[in-house]
Amino acid sequence: MVPFIARNKGALAADAVLMSDTLMLRPGQPAISYATRGDLYLELEVLGPKHDLHSGNFGGAIHNPLQALCEIIAKLHDANGRIAIPGIYDRVRQSSRTEEAWMVEFGAPDALVVEGAGSRRGWGERGYSLYERLTVRPALTINGIAGGYHGPGRKGVIPARATAKLSFRLVPDQDPHEVDRLFREHTARLTPPTVRAKVRTVSGTKPALVNPEHPMIRAAVSACRKGFGTPPALLRSGGTIPVVNAFQRILSAPTVLMGFALPDDRLHAPNEKLHLPTFF
Amino acid sequence: MVPFIARNKGALAADAVLMSDTLMLRPGQPAISYATRGDLYLELEVLGPKHDLHSGNFGGAIHNPLQALCEIIAKLHDANGRIAIPGIYDRVRQSSRTEEAWMVEFGAPDALVVEGAGSRRGWGERGYSLYERLTVRPALTINGIAGGYHGPGRKGVIPARATAKLSFRLVPDQDPHEVDRLFREHTARLTPPTVRAKVRTVSGTKPALVNPEHPMIRAAVSACRKGFGTPPALLRSGGTIPVVNAFQRILSAPTVLMGFALPDDRLHAPNEKLHLPTFF
Repeated sequence: MVPFIARNKGALAADAVLMSDTLMLRPGQPAISYATRGDLYLELEVLGPKHDLHSGNFGGAIHNPLQALCEIIAKLHDANGRIAIPGIYDRVRQSSRTEEAWMVEFGAPDALVVEGAGSRRGWGERGYSLYERLTVRPALTINGIAGGYHGPGRKGVIPARATAKLSFRLVPDQDPHEVDRLFREHTARLTPPTVRAKVRTVSGTKPALVNPEHPMIRAAVSACRKGFGTPPALLRSGGTIPVVNAFQRILSAPTVLMGFALPDDRLHAPNEKLHLPTFF
Repeated sequence: MVPFIARNKGALAADAVLMSDTLMLRPGQPAISYATRGDLYLELEVLGPKHDLHSGNFGGAIHNPLQALCEIIAKLHDANGRIAIPGIYDRVRQSSRTEEAWMVEFGAPDALVVEGAGSRRGWGERGYSLYERLTVRPALTINGIAGGYHGPGRKGVIPARATAKLSFRLVPDQDPHEVDRLFREHTARLTPPTVRAKVRTVSGTKPALVNPEHPMIRAAVSACRKGFGTPPALLRSGGTIPVVNAFQRILSAPTVLMGFALPDDRLHAPNEKLHLPTFF
C-alpha cells in the first residue's frame, strides 16, 4: 500500500484521514485514539542436530533445539516483567504530566483489561498500570512455537530444529530497525555453543502519534459528543496500524482514529464479534 | 500386549527371549545389550486467557501461556545439564566398578555419539561421558511444543494455551509413578499465579536390567563370536522396550537384546535406514 500512496500522492491529498480500526472501552462511551504502537515481527529458529534424533538413543547427550529455544525465550523477560534486552528501553519516551493525567482519566482500569482478556489477573512491567503497559510501554509477545511432535499420543523425538514467531510492540521513539539489531545481538549472546540460532525479520512498523490538539481531532471530538451524547475518551491504542505512519509521512495528513470495537470483541481470535447496538 | 502375555503365560513359557531391537556401535562389531532405560511420557499444558487474544490489544499486560511454558521448561534443567527436579536422582543406582570398566571398554566414545547424532558437540550432565548420560543416567527430553500461530507470515496472537510433550528416560531404580509425582509437584511449584498448568500422563515403563552373567547371555556371546568372528560388546541401551519388563515379570524370562542397528540409522526420524552388509 505504501508505494501506491506515494505514486498517488496528488490524488490522495487530504487535510486528514478518518479511520475506524480502534477500540472503545465500553458500549455508549465513544473514544478517539491519538497513538498506535509500532511493531517488529520476527522468527527465531534454533538449529541442533542435522536431522531428528531418537530420544532414547540420544536423550541426555545432545542439546535439544526445543529446549534451547525455551531457554533463550525464558531469558527475554526479567522477574519484573520487563524485556531483558540491553538498550531496549533507551528511546522509550516518558509520558508528560498532561498525558499521565489523561491516562488516569480516560484509560481502561486494570479490572476492565483483565475482564476483556478473559484472564484471571494481569501481568507485565512492574510500576505501570495495565493500560500503560498496553500503550506507552513496549511489549514482546511470543506468537507461536513449533517444533518436534505434537500429534496425538507419543513420539520419542529430539527435533533437529525449533521455531518461534515473536513480535515487539514499540512506542515513541523506538525504531524497529534498532530494536531488530538489539534483538539479534542479544540472541547471539544467549545462544549456547551447542546449537545455532537464526533470526528472520518478517515486518516492522514505527509507532505513530497524532497531536491530540490538531483541529481535525477537535472536530472529531465534537462529532462524537453529538452522536453519542457524551464526549469521547482520548486513548492510545496498543495495536499497530502501519498505514497511519505512511499517511503522516507521505501525505502529511494526520489520522483521526475513531473506532468502535469493544475490549471483549476477540480481535483476530475465534468467535470475533461486533456489538450491534454500537454498530447501529 | 501385557494382558496377552499374562493370559498366555503357559503357552509362552520359555527359558529366554531373543529380541533384535538394539544398537551396534559400528559395522562388523556385534553387541549385546543387557539394560534398557524406562520412560515416562507426559503432556504439560499451560492455560492462560479464556480465548486467544490480539497481541496489540493485550501484549504486555497478560501473561502469555507460550512464554510461561518456556519459562517452566527452562527451569527443568540446571546450568550443569542436570534435571532440576528435587528428588529425581534419589533412586539412581551408582554403577559398580565392574560396570564402570565395561562402560569404558565397550561404550561409545563421545566422538562416535556426536557423529551419530549429526551434531556439533555433546551436551548434558557434567561429570559423565556421553555414553553414560545415554545409559546409566536419566534424561528429560522436550519432544514437541505447540501453541499460537506457526503458519507462514505473521499473526499477532497471544494464544489461550500452549502444550509441550516431554519424556523422561529412567534408569534403575527409578520408578515412573514416583517420577510422575515429582514432576507434577515441581511443575505446580514452578507455575506462576498468572496461568494454570495441567499434566497428563501418556505412558510409563520401568527400566530393565538383565544379569549379563546369565547362561543365555553367555550363549549369545558365543553365537556372536561365531557369526561375526569377534566377541560382542556388552552395552546398555538408552532406549526403552516396555515388553522386556513384562517378559521378565510375568514369564521370569530374561531377554537377550541382540540388535543390529547402527548409530547413524536415524531411528524414528525421516530417512531411517538399515545397513545392508550388516543385514546380510
